[in-house]
Amino acid sequence: MSNKKILILPGDYIGQEIMAEAVKVLELFKAEGVAIEWSFGHLGGAAYDAEGHPYPPSTQKAAREADAILMGAVGGPKYDSLPRAVRPEQGILGIRKDLGLFANLRPALAYEELSAASSFKPEVIAGLDILILRELTGDIYFGQPRGRRQNAEGFEEGYDTMHYSVPEIERIGHVAFQAARKRSKRLCSVDKENVLETSRLWREVMIRVGKEYPDVELTHMYVDNAAMQLVKKPKQFDVIVTGNIFGDILSDEASMLAGSIGMLPSASLDANNKGLYEPIHGSAPDIAGQNKANPLATLLSVGMMFKYSFGRADLAGRIDAAVKKVLKAGHRTGDIAQPGDKIIGTREMGDAFVAAL
Amino acid sequence: MSNKKILILPGDYIGQEIMAEAVKVLELFKAEGVAIEWSFGHLGGAAYDAEGHPYPPSTQKAAREADAILMGAVGGPKYDSLPRAVRPEQGILGIRKDLGLFANLRPALAYEELSAASSFKPEVIAGLDILILRELTGDIYFGQPRGRRQNAEGFEEGYDTMHYSVPEIERIGHVAFQAARKRSKRLCSVDKENVLETSRLWREVMIRVGKEYPDVELTHMYVDNAAMQLVKKPKQFDVIVTGNIFGDILSDEASMLAGSIGMLPSASLDANNKGLYEPIHGSAPDIAGQNKANPLATLLSVGMMFKYSFGRADLAGRIDAAVKKVLKAGHRTGDIAQPGDKIIGTREMGDAFVAAL
Ligand SMILES: CC(C)[C@H](C(=O)O)[C@@H](O)C(=O)O
Ligand SMILES: CC(C)[C@H](C(=O)O)[C@@H](O)C(=O)O
Repeated sequence: MSNKKILILPGDYIGQEIMAEAVKVLELFKAEGVAIEWSFGHLGGAAYDAEGHPYPPSTQKAAREADAILMGAVGGPKYDSLPRAVRPEQGILGIRKDLGLFANLRPALAYEELSAASSFKPEVIAGLDILILRELTGDIYFGQPRGRRQNAEGFEEGYDTMHYSVPEIERIGHVAFQAARKRSKRLCSVDKENVLETSRLWREVMIRVGKEYPDVELTHMYVDNAAMQLVKKPKQFDVIVTGNIFGDILSDEASMLAGSIGMLPSASLDANNKGLYEPIHGSAPDIAGQNKANPLATLLSVGMMFKYSFGRADLAGRIDAAVKKVLKAGHRTGDIAQPGDKIIGTREMGDAFVAAL
Repeated sequence: MSNKKILILPGDYIGQEIMAEAVKVLELFKAEGVAIEWSFGHLGGAAYDAEGHPYPPSTQKAAREADAILMGAVGGPKYDSLPRAVRPEQGILGIRKDLGLFANLRPALAYEELSAASSFKPEVIAGLDILILRELTGDIYFGQPRGRRQNAEGFEEGYDTMHYSVPEIERIGHVAFQAARKRSKRLCSVDKENVLETSRLWREVMIRVGKEYPDVELTHMYVDNAAMQLVKKPKQFDVIVTGNIFGDILSDEASMLAGSIGMLPSASLDANNKGLYEPIHGSAPDIAGQNKANPLATLLSVGMMFKYSFGRADLAGRIDAAVKKVLKAGHRTGDIAQPGDKIIGTREMGDAFVAAL
């Protein structure tokens, strides 16, 4: 069997540092005989600097050939004043669309050891384990037409098109029902059906797809209520499925349930489980190059890669367990430390993790 | 001077009960010599039952003639299967649009006495006092075109149009800067400028309007980050201004910071401070008719009416103080009670409130 090909896109600022820790894990697994190989490429600001485009042709080619992609984080003040077409986030949007990465999986797990860092009372989040499934290649993100025009009264207006087609909803629906089936068999579909035509179709199709999963209980919730319930009683949820823009908002909100955004991985999958894996946090320019960033979200993303793209849930399980172990042992980067804790660096956390593995 | 005319629209389910408590306050103020008069009308499901439409012509006429409108809550399971055009929420959307109520003010205040009911640690919300300003008559709520169509690949799709024109953004911008000027002089405008054309124009116009308010500090935040920051460090905010759909989501999320949605009033104003005032909670069919609903959000909405539409901040101040007083005295409806608390009914809470006033 040939090696699985991993493309590593460190991106900008802390992206370099956290990815160096991920490589330590890849090296360990390779030494154990896992059939993987990896190469590096540019995305975002780094790609603009090197090749004049946030998702340049060289990265496109490598990304298409890879079996999975590990990404660090992109963007930062250095690139904020660039023309929109070459801004770093266009690199992210570009690679998602180019590779058809329509299913974004964002688990939110509350680590008992970190409950001091959370805004929430311990009992609200203790044992929390939810999965947000966000559609990632449709909706108002890519809808046409969009731009500027004169409205009926002659004033300038900006506009965008929200839209979802039946097959787009069906495919994320199947991913969601299958995920729910493997968990608690409860799926909550979030929309704004009382206002939006797009949501009406979304809900109709979800109900239709649900007929194929009679063992999964499907409920519906308006997005405003979901934003409230996530804070009020987060443990009522198991799997949530929603569109691109609502998912963008709700998954960032839900990330706070876990205490620190430095702990949260994500996977973005195509129809064949090829995926892009990244921590959900940003490129943190303020702490870049200082050995301060928390690499755990990236390491958990490596775990998701082994699970979803390479069918190695066993390796993902080891990674999850090692994260719990380093937390239990009291290792803390600054973002998850409490007053009085000893703070360690990115490299030290990576080393502690590899040792725990 | 002629009496100020108040139109009361109790709406559905608990709407009737909470509005009865509001009337007690109006009666008290009238007895004190405040020049008001009021009449009743239908909105939502109740209007559909009585006149076949959620915002019928009789209500339209009365609403246009009124100086302010007090609303209870609309909607409920009884009306869920009606054709969309006559569903209760069309009554709300209809009256907002018809009266040009473009500025939705949603204060979120954390009451110390209720911190036990909150999901948040006391130190996260202690002293919290933020104001969310949501644009209410534009955006994807009313955008055309919308509906169903075949997409380029021949599949059925649902679609909606998000849009904002320069004057729409300017007018909510002015309301926001003026509100910030009266408070801490900090305004955070929330958008998704890195993805949406509508948001690009939104941000440009906010910056331009801000030039007229050099004493107010304007910042910008992406909506996903705002959803996270509201949970992470809510006290960083003072006034937030955003569009209709983002505001729908964020203001419901923020309502949880106050502990109970039963405590939160709202105002929706036109360009001349004519307004519609309502609690942000729903019609709670499960507890309707049982003397269980919390009337305080409605009473605080009455306060907002006196402040914003009738220029009587003094009366609003008395109402705010009376709410604090009844809470301090330990009066609790079920939604804000803790295990062991004595629970009182809607009417008893209303009476305690009037006594405190
Ligand atoms: C950077 C931005 C375009 C992106 C998005 O909105 O999808 C980000 O917020 C995310 O969630 O990955
Ligand atoms: C009922 C619904 C149409 C409405 C909205 O989305 O505006 C409600 O959620 C609100 O916030 O007042």
